[in-house]
Amino acid sequence: MKFVSIVMGSKNDYIVMNSCSKILKDFGVKYELVVSSAHRSPERTATYIQEAEAKGAQVFIAAAGMAAHLAGVLSSKTVKPIIGVPMDASALSGMDALLSTVQMPAGMPVATVAIGKAGAINSAYLAMQILALDDEELSIKLKEDRIAKAKKVEMDSMEIETIIDGNLPDPY
Amino acid sequence: MKFVSIVMGSKNDYIVMNSCSKILKDFGVKYELVVSSAHRSPERTATYIQEAEAKGAQVFIAAAGMAAHLAGVLSSKTVKPIIGVPMDASALSGMDALLSTVQMPAGMPVATVAIGKAGAINSAYLAMQILALDDEELSIKLKEDRIAKAKKVEMDSMEIETIIDGNLPDPY
Amino acid sequence: MKFVSIVMGSKNDYIVMNSCSKILKDFGVKYELVVSSAHRSPERTATYIQEAEAKGAQVFIAAAGMAAHLAGVLSSKTVKPIIGVPMDASALSGMDALLSTVQMPAGMPVATVAIGKAGAINSAYLAMQILALDDEELSIKLKEDRIAKAKKVEMDSMEIETIIDGNLPDPY
Amino acid sequence: MKFVSIVMGSKNDYIVMNSCSKILKDFGVKYELVVSSAHRSPERTATYIQEAEAKGAQVFIAAAGMAAHLAGVLSSKTVKPIIGVPMDASALSGMDALLSTVQMPAGMPVATVAIGKAGAINSAYLAMQILALDDEELSIKLKEDRIAKAKKVEMDSMEIETIIDGNLPDPY
Amino acid sequence: MKFVSIVMGSKNDYIVMNSCSKILKDFGVKYELVVSSAHRSPERTATYIQEAEAKGAQVFIAAAGMAAHLAGVLSSKTVKPIIGVPMDASALSGMDALLSTVQMPAGMPVATVAIGKAGAINSAYLAMQILALDDEELSIKLKEDRIAKAKKVEMDSMEIETIIDGNLPDPY
Amino acid sequence: MKFVSIVMGSKNDYIVMNSCSKILKDFGVKYELVVSSAHRSPERTATYIQEAEAKGAQVFIAAAGMAAHLAGVLSSKTVKPIIGVPMDASALSGMDALLSTVQMPAGMPVATVAIGKAGAINSAYLAMQILALDDEELSIKLKEDRIAKAKKVEMDSMEIETIIDGNLPDPY
Amino acid sequence: MKFVSIVMGSKNDYIVMNSCSKILKDFGVKYELVVSSAHRSPERTATYIQEAEAKGAQVFIAAAGMAAHLAGVLSSKTVKPIIGVPMDASALSGMDALLSTVQMPAGMPVATVAIGKAGAINSAYLAMQILALDDEELSIKLKEDRIAKAKKVEMDSMEIETIIDGNLPDPY
Amino acid sequence: MKFVSIVMGSKNDYIVMNSCSKILKDFGVKYELVVSSAHRSPERTATYIQEAEAKGAQVFIAAAGMAAHLAGVLSSKTVKPIIGVPMDASALSGMDALLSTVQMPAGMPVATVAIGKAGAINSAYLAMQILALDDEELSIKLKEDRIAKAKKVEMDSMEIETIIDGNLPDPY
Repeated sequence: MKFVSIVMGSKNDYIVMNSCSKILKDFGVKYELVVSSAHRSPERTATYIQEAEAKGAQVFIAAAGMAAHLAGVLSSKTVKPIIGVPMDASALSGMDALLSTVQMPAGMPVATVAIGKAGAINSAYLAMQILALDDEELSIKLKEDRIAKAKKVEMDSMEIETIIDGNLPDPY
Repeated sequence: MKFVSIVMGSKNDYIVMNSCSKILKDFGVKYELVVSSAHRSPERTATYIQEAEAKGAQVFIAAAGMAAHLAGVLSSKTVKPIIGVPMDASALSGMDALLSTVQMPAGMPVATVAIGKAGAINSAYLAMQILALDDEELSIKLKEDRIAKAKKVEMDSMEIETIIDGNLPDPY
Repeated sequence: MKFVSIVMGSKNDYIVMNSCSKILKDFGVKYELVVSSAHRSPERTATYIQEAEAKGAQVFIAAAGMAAHLAGVLSSKTVKPIIGVPMDASALSGMDALLSTVQMPAGMPVATVAIGKAGAINSAYLAMQILALDDEELSIKLKEDRIAKAKKVEMDSMEIETIIDGNLPDPY
Repeated sequence: MKFVSIVMGSKNDYIVMNSCSKILKDFGVKYELVVSSAHRSPERTATYIQEAEAKGAQVFIAAAGMAAHLAGVLSSKTVKPIIGVPMDASALSGMDALLSTVQMPAGMPVATVAIGKAGAINSAYLAMQILALDDEELSIKLKEDRIAKAKKVEMDSMEIETIIDGNLPDPY
Repeated sequence: MKFVSIVMGSKNDYIVMNSCSKILKDFGVKYELVVSSAHRSPERTATYIQEAEAKGAQVFIAAAGMAAHLAGVLSSKTVKPIIGVPMDASALSGMDALLSTVQMPAGMPVATVAIGKAGAINSAYLAMQILALDDEELSIKLKEDRIAKAKKVEMDSMEIETIIDGNLPDPY
Repeated sequence: MKFVSIVMGSKNDYIVMNSCSKILKDFGVKYELVVSSAHRSPERTATYIQEAEAKGAQVFIAAAGMAAHLAGVLSSKTVKPIIGVPMDASALSGMDALLSTVQMPAGMPVATVAIGKAGAINSAYLAMQILALDDEELSIKLKEDRIAKAKKVEMDSMEIETIIDGNLPDPY
Repeated sequence: MKFVSIVMGSKNDYIVMNSCSKILKDFGVKYELVVSSAHRSPERTATYIQEAEAKGAQVFIAAAGMAAHLAGVLSSKTVKPIIGVPMDASALSGMDALLSTVQMPAGMPVATVAIGKAGAINSAYLAMQILALDDEELSIKLKEDRIAKAKKVEMDSMEIETIIDGNLPDPY
Repeated sequence: MKFVSIVMGSKNDYIVMNSCSKILKDFGVKYELVVSSAHRSPERTATYIQEAEAKGAQVFIAAAGMAAHLAGVLSSKTVKPIIGVPMDASALSGMDALLSTVQMPAGMPVATVAIGKAGAINSAYLAMQILALDDEELSIKLKEDRIAKAKKVEMDSMEIETIIDGNLPDPY
């Protein structure tokens, strides 16, 4: 059975990564959510990735903060696509995690998304875009989501738009 | 009819960009305020800019955060001046939006102002400075505003100034 | 026919992106290489992505520098996976392009890789990892490449290793 | 007579700002090019801006490096639009000049463009976009320039494009 | 009469600069505290510095945030020493003000101190160190202050020190 | 008697460094905790390090913020290993302290750990790893701690893991 | 037999790390120098660290650039002290490697030294300081080295010193 | 006899600091130039500052790179004004030295100037501005220098100025 594996370096990352798993659930995409640290539980991480791949994991999403090595460690153990989500978990606002995730050496890619919640959400979308290459139904759902998002922008705009003579709605 | 078009990438930007529209209103400059995202509603954005230009938009103000592409997208669709306001909308304090807005390639300028509220205010002033090149009345208003600002500084100083023997007013 | 589309914002990017196309060629993966700018040729970019998708493009690789909007523009036009390669093309050493590429808003992911040549190479690998989900032959090639890379490390080490009493080979 | 005033903080900036004046000349836009430092010649700078404005300067372009105060000083002396070009003139790669130019306080805008040569070019384009609001001929020239730029992209692409089976042209 | 002139770019800076004036007062050093903006009140700033110098100002302390030009403007108008205090007044945590203050071009120095409150305090100490070159009484006070500071460290340590077997006082 | 010396530049650092001393206490490692500033009490610092070394200090942990010179000063006075903990004590989020601690010139090393609390904890672990080279009992404790940490990760994961059909536990 | 293990992520790092091994050799400290990548040869790295530890490795020095995970991977596999040397191996001047090395999570320390050659040298000194805790002879050598370094400073100064009337030696 | 003391952390800094001593010599200001490292020769540094102060040093200029502690160490030993010049001596382009120099804790100021050569020059000017408070002759020289600098700007401008019809001199 094909599914997305979400690995978090710390239990605390779930507060943010919940935004990722929720979207996968909303789209009906199967996923698995585990905690495994590149540093505190290296054996577990190595074992997990093999088992997950054997069970059918197609894409791995790795969320970690600070010197975020988790995505890189996963990348070194499989040729499945790895999506890295840098967490904002230190005084450096996630810049440490971003550089630790994206600046991978040649031949060992990590598909890096934005720091924090936007990245958590985008990791779900990116995983689905990858799965949708071979899943027409999911592809259609993603296109419908785009249309819905564009409509939402129109709704938002109508709420705010002013007529040209400048009668401004009250700020909210 | 000549007017300023304010385009925000997200409804939430209005909390900050309200400072922009308020100033235009105070100076009696006509404007239009819409939400349109470079990414979530690309067609709407493309259509809007053409319609706005046809209706008389002289200057576009684009406010966006993170990978702030909105001003750049507008810049690619018109030769009217585009003012970009980087929003502080991520863990990176608007540095991402600043660089995404200002570092435009040769031939595709975006007139970038400061991050956040100061930028929102300055986008209004910059738009008015551009319009005032052909509007003597507005030019006079801008000069009067400068005089008022300078007076305000004097008032502020009088509130705080101490005599030289150092009798300090209580901090506030 | 399935293929990878490589889009560069400028002809100059080919000096770096040649490393991407070369790897795809070495692995026997079909690709197409075009120049199209988000800002200088927005219509061409919009048209191209539709045509490429219709022709069978599965994954898009977008390389751009400075305020690198190209990957984001592609992301807004398709639900195929977009890989962004930030170019080091300004005084800011590619940090501008990195942030402009990776900090995408929620729902519009760009799979970002490292700045410059390492990123160019990794964009090819990431694209192949995605295609390999549905291409067992390619998956095997990627695994063999990993084994070769690990062997190369061993060779490199043998060239350098010293015995414990510290007889150091001459530096090179 | 209407013209663009280009003010450089140092004679050395001409090496870069020559790209600005050349474009204005190519488009037939009148300009004046002077050296005046915010710090080394403050009186000259103050006097110049008044005289230039009296002579017909519509837009000021200020190029400066390091703690680039020139654009801000001009902004404090006139309500004409000021375009700031941050020069890459220190160990900090122009980041100092960028922040010193763009982070202007509320009410005192500087229309900031990219660091270095791209910014020098864009300052010319932005100045022309502003002048074109009241100059239909210039507006048409700017639109033709866009078409030429888009065509140039097509030419660049044809030079590089490969057919889908991956016959790569030699890198250049 | 010799005194220190403290110039703040905005009334709000007094919340921080109060730490500066308080120290001068505690040491019995005469000072004057005014608000004058480099951008909003350039004439007032130019006039003030001349008058203050005529009245006996020996050292100027300039506090400003964002594109902090105030210290540089003062530096351009006098050969008295200028101390610059970068304020933390934007999303960029004072890094913009630091670079705008310290990266002055050759020949126009600003004696820059730390961002925010530590800098406000140090601007007072630096001004007193300069005045003390010609004021033995003040020099002695500064040396006594150093002794007091060193004693304070000892007191702080005694409050916290633990004996070697690790009986830790409760954290506070 | 062998012990670890913890030196803090300011009493306030104890709020964070308490995490360091607590771990040493938990592992039964003797330590001493003092306040001594590189700048405010240079003689005390110089004297202390000699006395501490004479008493048996094996490793020094130095915690300081801003222009964090404390670890460097200790490094210049002894050939015992110095561990530097950069404090997040200014507007710059500890980046100033990190660079002031880690970028030591050749021949004068400071073993730098992460900014803030994670660094405080890691300074204790690093000190123990050094002591454990000659203390088998401590080495075993450190290995047991690793096992406990790995188990904790498993427990955390079980709390969060979802079954593959996506029944997500409520976020916490 | 006790020795220092130097692990480099890439053969190219030897150009810089040669400065590390040379110092160890000069001090007569046994060492081993290998290439092993955290990402390209994860199994080799895991195997190596166990074997090295079994053979007598006391301290590990890990040199890596970009998303420098090598030191962290070693740290996760042993409780021996790990020294991390960030390499300047990308457009980001080693800032990526510094943050990837130093910002380790609580409980998994890496003793980080400066970027590049100064760090390579300091990694050797730090390793020797650690070994010297249990090696009086090495401790004396390190103290003698300090004396030599101080003498060298005096020699350098004599070469440059000028007498007070300002007769400056020619620059070199 | 009153003089300026220039202390460099390394002999190599003379290549840059030569610009400082040259200016002092040109203005007839007595100075002394020594090499003394905060870290490699701490005792020499401590002794030197006392001797220099006893001999008549009024102002100290400290030039250092990387974790530039030299100015801070001097500041902790005297209440004479200390001017810090951050050297560009590492991969981080002097940002490390800037933050290590300017971010001094409350009560221990360092008058920081720009990174590198501009800072070297400005350290001389700042020292002279301080000495000129009590030296009318020097004060006049500084004012004359300002007039000369302003004249130089005019000369530079005449070399470059174009007439308004845009006859551009050839770039140089």
